[in-house]
Amino acid sequence: MANSKYEYVKGFEQPDALLPNTWVVVRVDGRGFHKLSDHYAFQKPNDRRALDLMNKAAVEVMKDLPDLVLAYGVSDEYSFVFHPTCELFERRSAKIVTTVVSTFTAHYIYHWNTFFTETPLKPPFLPSFDGRAVTYPSTRNLRDYMSWRQVDCHINNLYNTTFWAMVLKGGMSNTDAEQELKGTVSSDKNEILFRRFGINYNNELEIYKKGSVVYRQYELETKEGKEAASSDLEPVSKTQQEKMRKLRKKAQVVVDHVDIIKDDFWDRRPWIVSNKPGKLPVSQDIS
Amino acid sequence: MANSKYEYVKGFEQPDALLPNTWVVVRVDGRGFHKLSDHYAFQKPNDRRALDLMNKAAVEVMKDLPDLVLAYGVSDEYSFVFHPTCELFERRSAKIVTTVVSTFTAHYIYHWNTFFTETPLKPPFLPSFDGRAVTYPSTRNLRDYMSWRQVDCHINNLYNTTFWAMVLKGGMSNTDAEQELKGTVSSDKNEILFRRFGINYNNELEIYKKGSVVYRQYELETKEGKEAASSDLEPVSKTQQEKMRKLRKKAQVVVDHVDIIKDDFWDRRPWIVSNKPGKLPVSQDIS
Amino acid sequence: MANSKYEYVKGFEQPDALLPNTWVVVRVDGRGFHKLSDHYAFQKPNDRRALDLMNKAAVEVMKDLPDLVLAYGVSDEYSFVFHPTCELFERRSAKIVTTVVSTFTAHYIYHWNTFFTETPLKPPFLPSFDGRAVTYPSTRNLRDYMSWRQVDCHINNLYNTTFWAMVLKGGMSNTDAEQELKGTVSSDKNEILFRRFGINYNNELEIYKKGSVVYRQYELETKEGKEAASSDLEPVSKTQQEKMRKLRKKAQVVVDHVDIIKDDFWDRRPWIVSNKPGKLPVSQDIS
Amino acid sequence: MANSKYEYVKGFEQPDALLPNTWVVVRVDGRGFHKLSDHYAFQKPNDRRALDLMNKAAVEVMKDLPDLVLAYGVSDEYSFVFHPTCELFERRSAKIVTTVVSTFTAHYIYHWNTFFTETPLKPPFLPSFDGRAVTYPSTRNLRDYMSWRQVDCHINNLYNTTFWAMVLKGGMSNTDAEQELKGTVSSDKNEILFRRFGINYNNELEIYKKGSVVYRQYELETKEGKEAASSDLEPVSKTQQEKMRKLRKKAQVVVDHVDIIKDDFWDRRPWIVSNKPGKLPVSQDIS
Repeated sequence: MANSKYEYVKGFEQPDALLPNTWVVVRVDGRGFHKLSDHYAFQKPNDRRALDLMNKAAVEVMKDLPDLVLAYGVSDEYSFVFHPTCELFERRSAKIVTTVVSTFTAHYIYHWNTFFTETPLKPPFLPSFDGRAVTYPSTRNLRDYMSWRQVDCHINNLYNTTFWAMVLKGGMSNTDAEQELKGTVSSDKNEILFRRFGINYNNELEIYKKGSVVYRQYELETKEGKEAASSDLEPVSKTQQEKMRKLRKKAQVVVDHVDIIKDDFWDRRPWIVSNKPGKLPVSQDIS
Repeated sequence: MANSKYEYVKGFEQPDALLPNTWVVVRVDGRGFHKLSDHYAFQKPNDRRALDLMNKAAVEVMKDLPDLVLAYGVSDEYSFVFHPTCELFERRSAKIVTTVVSTFTAHYIYHWNTFFTETPLKPPFLPSFDGRAVTYPSTRNLRDYMSWRQVDCHINNLYNTTFWAMVLKGGMSNTDAEQELKGTVSSDKNEILFRRFGINYNNELEIYKKGSVVYRQYELETKEGKEAASSDLEPVSKTQQEKMRKLRKKAQVVVDHVDIIKDDFWDRRPWIVSNKPGKLPVSQDIS
Repeated sequence: MANSKYEYVKGFEQPDALLPNTWVVVRVDGRGFHKLSDHYAFQKPNDRRALDLMNKAAVEVMKDLPDLVLAYGVSDEYSFVFHPTCELFERRSAKIVTTVVSTFTAHYIYHWNTFFTETPLKPPFLPSFDGRAVTYPSTRNLRDYMSWRQVDCHINNLYNTTFWAMVLKGGMSNTDAEQELKGTVSSDKNEILFRRFGINYNNELEIYKKGSVVYRQYELETKEGKEAASSDLEPVSKTQQEKMRKLRKKAQVVVDHVDIIKDDFWDRRPWIVSNKPGKLPVSQDIS
Repeated sequence: MANSKYEYVKGFEQPDALLPNTWVVVRVDGRGFHKLSDHYAFQKPNDRRALDLMNKAAVEVMKDLPDLVLAYGVSDEYSFVFHPTCELFERRSAKIVTTVVSTFTAHYIYHWNTFFTETPLKPPFLPSFDGRAVTYPSTRNLRDYMSWRQVDCHINNLYNTTFWAMVLKGGMSNTDAEQELKGTVSSDKNEILFRRFGINYNNELEIYKKGSVVYRQYELETKEGKEAASSDLEPVSKTQQEKMRKLRKKAQVVVDHVDIIKDDFWDRRPWIVSNKPGKLPVSQDIS
């Protein structure tokens, strides 16, 4: 029984390769996490278990896909970054984005019990995620994307920290707190936190203020005499690429809560922009 | 701290709405399931637990997304069908496909233990799936797509059934079996099965021969006097659409193992092509 | 001197094939024709020479591209229609649209002097056109597109006829005429035309009221006993396609000014929707 | 008569904006110029009139679209380059490419008689062009694209010069000449030209060997102390953009036949990569 009569339907699949030599960012977002976080009683303003679970899933995605050079997570979203030279799945957009989303989901569901020891998952309330792929032509554009997410993290966290202090500690209703915060700037919120609740926002945990940065760890470069890394690599042979892939797999994937807006982060970790594996640290604990 | 300086990066997201008035098929495929099925010792040629788990995940996806009108699964792949009138997520391709893939993955991981009671999942060998969305302009094209998958199911299952009989019952090496089957047609394989192993292929389970068809159940139409349903609907108001969505949510989602190539399946279930909910059966057991 | 070092740049070209089995409409629009029509002193509200030149260019495009089944023009725009079975340039969008636009432009420039005998072209004021390709999945969608353009033609022509009567015959300023017409409906404009200027809009030329329909001429079908043509053709062999292409080239391309909203036009010319060449009229004058 | 019933068809137009911050190259190609050049008896291996006409059309396109920073032509093709910061038509691909193609065609047809004084155009043999838009993320990629075209120019011109010398001066048949040239390298062809026909390829006209480079002329920079221009501009206000547009319109558009592979061309004309208008030369002849 030949299948040739129907095979013409394959002709309706449309190619979706992402433009070569561009940074590819896959952003994964929780679906309906507002409702879900109520259902599983996430703590406010931040639930450490939920963030640790997000980070765990992200680390596993990074390990599974050595082509990834960087990831950044905040709240129920995670951005995964592929290098301009990446040729994974011939850069087919749907294949790349679904692979990241599915791997992330699998680990999130699987590891839920490790972090939420007292509140097991119960269908139909299973967490799931959507995602999209966006390309950025220059390293400047990529860094501005990362800065955008980290500034957003700061803005939202300051707001949420203040809002929930007013509600949970100050006994205000949600509506009243929202009303009072309308139109306030950062200094106003810092003031409210400090005056009314004795909270110095600077002392909040870095994971809440900065979000989570995930990357492969090599020996940090000193800043001096370091020229900026370039993503415009000489073309490398398939063999060399495979070799570099293996080197990348050996590196430890770490989670950091640091500033990624200023140059320092990037200058000291030139392997992120150059995609050339650095020197493995002398002693490395495999996570 | 305003975020406006970096917000320009949002301008790099490119719209990806699927062409209106076309059938949308999202096909989900297991990633590396060859290796995975070895790792968890799936039975050959078919592992009933694995298929039941696929079907369970598919049913949950259908329940979660009432816009879906049909799904068809075979082996480690599942095709989900949205109607031409579907406006879910403004038809954004990445959003649609990642939502289906993530929801499917979540349920597959969550329900694994129910079906594989003796072989728990063990990272890093977590199942994951990729996916793609394809649009089909006419109902003929959609039905040909479905036929293509079901013919493929038949071809592969006949081959696998014969191959594994030769290996597991006939004691042949994989290579020898492969060699002997090269160039054979269906009747040859039926012959090998019957003569050497006393297997009548027709008596194999329908789930293996036909795959699994998932849809919402209403009262079947009798064939007589039934004009073919058309997908070219009159535009309906938002209110009506919402009403129909709710009606669809009430219908039971069933798993069937039947022929979807011939007209009969479609004639008796006109609600699939028309997207107008039918009459609920008198007694309906909620699955 | 090998060119291989640079050839990688070809990899940046992205495929743009239009979805198979859909109607393809290429709409060509005059660039800056408002200014241009002032410069060459086009007559108001309609310049017959300009319309005839548009029609001439459209007929030549139809002759040059036998894959075209229909065209519709109004003012400085023209819509060209390719059949769902069309495989021209493997349906590559940019190739199709630029070919239509360039061929149209070439004939428009070349034939200018034939129609504008007293006002030769003078650079840099050369007419040019932009264009876009849109796909429509069903014949209903295509016909609604054509109806949309023809209704637009009617609305604009009634407005312009009234406006210019008020200005040119009534001596009103542009602003005053515009002001008075604001918020009026069709019957108001008919009334103004008739009462003030003795113009019965129904007696205006069909080319102004209906626009121009261009197609290949075969013997008209009688309406009786005619089932509606379907665009969902059986696949035909390359040889047959080539034969039909040649048949289409033999047919005369005609310009008509008729209603294309009602069924009659389509019922009597079933070859447009079916793409099967009809019977050549007994006597045919080659235009 | 409202048009709202049909207006839904506008929803089928799909957005096609090109990725921001990328170089946009629109390449225009003659349609069926092999046949056309026979028909109008173009001289071999190069017809100066045809090239001058191509260049004339290209210069007019550059003048009409001040967003263009560079163009390169060879034979019957022309590549037009928009800067990464270009926002023309909101970067809509079809709009950009059809505008370039149509403007080019209009001038090519209009100016034909100026260059081909003895062989007027005769329908249906009107020249026309197709086109496509390709985006390049980095200046390296753009320069490699330009190098690719210029190397191609050299390879083809050396081949054609040799081939037509063998045929026209050597009295060989086309087939024999083709046969003999199969597998030859550059030095072989130089040798044939010199030994048999006394032609020193180096003395051929630059327009044939290098093709034609079109750009706006400002005072050339000296090479010393010049840092490489960057395309990664600070965002500029709308007002500034409009001002720069006007400055660009003032510059003379020149046609050059020079090497664009090496750095020198780019170093001395930094305004091409930077898109910042340079200093107008003291005396400027308007072309």
